[in-house]
Amino acid sequence: MPSTYERFMEQVKKVHTLASVSRLLSWDMQTYMPPKGGTLRGEQLALIRGEMHDIIAGDAMGAFLNELSSPNGADPVRATNIREMRREHDRARKIPKAYVEELTRVTSKAKSSWSEARKNKDFGLFADDLKKIIELKRNEAGYVGFDTNPYDALLTEYEPGSSAESVGAMFAPLREGITPLLKQVLESPTQPDVSITRHPLSEERQREFGASIAKDFGFDFDSGRLDKSAHPFCSGFHPGDVRMTARYNEHEPMSSLFAILHETGHGLYNQGLDAAYFGTPCGESVSLGVHESQSRLWENNVGRSKPFWSRYLPKLKATYGGALDDVSLDEFHFAVNAVHLSPIRVEADELTYNLHILLRFELENDLINGNVSVDALPETWDAKMERYLHLTPPDVSQGCLQDIHWSFGGIGYFPTYTIGNLYAAQLDAAIRRDIPKLDAQIARGEFGELLGWLREKIHRHGMRYASEQVIEEATGERPDGTYFVNYLRDKYAPLYKL
Amino acid sequence: MPSTYERFMEQVKKVHTLASVSRLLSWDMQTYMPPKGGTLRGEQLALIRGEMHDIIAGDAMGAFLNELSSPNGADPVRATNIREMRREHDRARKIPKAYVEELTRVTSKAKSSWSEARKNKDFGLFADDLKKIIELKRNEAGYVGFDTNPYDALLTEYEPGSSAESVGAMFAPLREGITPLLKQVLESPTQPDVSITRHPLSEERQREFGASIAKDFGFDFDSGRLDKSAHPFCSGFHPGDVRMTARYNEHEPMSSLFAILHETGHGLYNQGLDAAYFGTPCGESVSLGVHESQSRLWENNVGRSKPFWSRYLPKLKATYGGALDDVSLDEFHFAVNAVHLSPIRVEADELTYNLHILLRFELENDLINGNVSVDALPETWDAKMERYLHLTPPDVSQGCLQDIHWSFGGIGYFPTYTIGNLYAAQLDAAIRRDIPKLDAQIARGEFGELLGWLREKIHRHGMRYASEQVIEEATGERPDGTYFVNYLRDKYAPLYKL
Repeated sequence: MPSTYERFMEQVKKVHTLASVSRLLSWDMQTYMPPKGGTLRGEQLALIRGEMHDIIAGDAMGAFLNELSSPNGADPVRATNIREMRREHDRARKIPKAYVEELTRVTSKAKSSWSEARKNKDFGLFADDLKKIIELKRNEAGYVGFDTNPYDALLTEYEPGSSAESVGAMFAPLREGITPLLKQVLESPTQPDVSITRHPLSEERQREFGASIAKDFGFDFDSGRLDKSAHPFCSGFHPGDVRMTARYNEHEPMSSLFAILHETGHGLYNQGLDAAYFGTPCGESVSLGVHESQSRLWENNVGRSKPFWSRYLPKLKATYGGALDDVSLDEFHFAVNAVHLSPIRVEADELTYNLHILLRFELENDLINGNVSVDALPETWDAKMERYLHLTPPDVSQGCLQDIHWSFGGIGYFPTYTIGNLYAAQLDAAIRRDIPKLDAQIARGEFGELLGWLREKIHRHGMRYASEQVIEEATGERPDGTYFVNYLRDKYAPLYKL
Repeated sequence: MPSTYERFMEQVKKVHTLASVSRLLSWDMQTYMPPKGGTLRGEQLALIRGEMHDIIAGDAMGAFLNELSSPNGADPVRATNIREMRREHDRARKIPKAYVEELTRVTSKAKSSWSEARKNKDFGLFADDLKKIIELKRNEAGYVGFDTNPYDALLTEYEPGSSAESVGAMFAPLREGITPLLKQVLESPTQPDVSITRHPLSEERQREFGASIAKDFGFDFDSGRLDKSAHPFCSGFHPGDVRMTARYNEHEPMSSLFAILHETGHGLYNQGLDAAYFGTPCGESVSLGVHESQSRLWENNVGRSKPFWSRYLPKLKATYGGALDDVSLDEFHFAVNAVHLSPIRVEADELTYNLHILLRFELENDLINGNVSVDALPETWDAKMERYLHLTPPDVSQGCLQDIHWSFGGIGYFPTYTIGNLYAAQLDAAIRRDIPKLDAQIARGEFGELLGWLREKIHRHGMRYASEQVIEEATGERPDGTYFVNYLRDKYAPLYKL
């Protein structure tokens, strides 16, 4: 007769296995599904996710948790399993099924109206649906519960343990550090020649070059793939099956390359999870913020560094077979780190990226708290853009309509991008203390010690520790945004001769 | 408050939607899954199929069926739904879970031992596992129940309504008709030059050429795909999402082409099912035999005909860009219909193919009834091969170890291939009565009227009628093997100048 805990774990494992099926359905939808497969796919996803919800929120799960939640000694794996399922169960129980259905209905419509509004550069086409979404998410916060700020309840869905206050505190040194640095960079007489990164390269060559670096980083192509999709992403079904995607523009080869390095960072995390704990919280990544720290670390801290290009520029030159032969390492390294003001988040460089997020974070907080109305969003957006980035979007499609997130109800998601950047810089600093010869290794294309460090300090733990705790254990310090500001200054000062 | 029937149908729909998920998992496993994804995939499939089994065999389903099985008037859709779910429920109830687990365990091992035995040409490595499988399948027949022959219970799993007697009766005219015709063909002084079908062609060109014909046949690539896998197959998730696969050998371009035309036949059936009935028996294909009739009809009756090649040989010549320029239509048409004796089923031509199946049908029947022992299988196989095909396999890997079917417990599967061939010939004859100008249409690359006929007479009905009834309704006659014998004589007599 299996124990209560064993029967509980059987259900936990079932939820996670269903989640892995749901991820395959989504991956296929974005890579290979034919256009008319969408109707069925919607039904399949609704069925699988509905089953997950029924198990998580079910009375049987509640009974297990009540029986198990008594102090249970020192087994951290068991404690993690119970804690995480308790969190999910409580959240699912608090949110009425009618609410979930209404949100699905509204966001399904909103995705179309957002797309139309963006195409027609007419915010009015999206405003009513966004109003409904804001109201619904405010209701959601009410169901979930919060201390003083309803936005906190939404933030924790994406980054457990975070709050508007903690995120605000994290942004403070950024705002103070980045603004003067940005000014200096823009006014510097030394500027890069970015045209050298824009020689056309065929899709096939781009893919080969990117995949070869992913392999060098340590991505195991026997445990994963690299396919094409409209928007790059990485989905881990299991440490033995991790699917990355990229998109290719012949005239922007660096754009696909850095996207591949980014997704490889996610992919290495997914492959580094402990397969022995598959199907349980200890085998799942801890948070979106920590996930993003892995992607950013490989994309930026490694992939935009000079040692990296000292190894890979000659290889890129060989791939081009001539077009880059006259380009020096310094020129190329400068060009892939060029700072340029853009109203578009996904085109932003490392220096300005987080200002785009700061703007969204403040607006989300204000929208949910009723301090900014949906109708006032476009002008408030533009005013903030002027303040932080000294520019005005030419139209709403390049302003407050540029991102899909709000249309699917993803309010509270954006800050995880910045959390990832900050964590990456702090991890990078700790890694450089522990691996003093890191740059020399990178210049030789040796990434094993770096990957081993991340595996040991981050990947293998799964959800055993909370996200901030993982960073603290790994780096010896609580999360601290000044590492990122220092990283930016150390990078840009020599490049722009500040 | 939903009625009993509505609640019943909700469960029926759930089973079919889970089946469509299981098909995607299998498709991905055979096309894109990385090598180390297998562990998770096994767990995912076991979970989804386990859920299907639990619903089908569950007490709730039994209660629905008991309440609904009273006479329910004239609605044929409702009657089909209840009849088919009753059949599945009864079968699932009769088979103990412990048996299913044991079969899974044994066949999982047997697939490896078969593969080893085949590689080493050593039947002894597989014999013990095959003995266990035969015993288990005999037990299965006992659970399911049968009148006089346990093999009947296994046949009906693949072709509902069939029996050893009905299949034997079907083979009788074949044996009598094919044997003398084969003798004449082999002794004819007129023989084709098959080397003209073996000019190398790149994988990419082969794929393009095959896909273009699939499109001409009416396969909708907005509702389906053509990918690569080790063994070609077609899997329909929904009429809007049908996945075909092919494999390519540069030196055997006709092999991939006819495989694509074959899978296209399956694909057109899957796309022609009524989407309004998706998730219910009326939206599912009726049987493996009828499915195979569709693939064979497009592959052979259309794809190996002279009118077909009068249109497509010029296109193939253009694809080759020179290598085939001197080849005449008659020469090519003869070459793609060449008869040659081979010990290997999958290499067989239309004339000898069913002799391979006859041999397997007789052996399966004898193995299950204990008239042939597993130890005597290799010599019995070879003796039958000598009798029907006048040749002796050089070793067991080309003899009784050539097919994977028995290793996965697929006993009773082979006859569906021949059923498909017979049905195709009978349908072809009926179609030619209804569409007198069919050959002229084919020669113009117009397949709309043919496809429309199949849609109307076969595809749209789903499982509404039993398989033999579908053929009878479509052709006006009960299934009759003499159509196939006549078809073969009409084809080969002029080619070989008999």
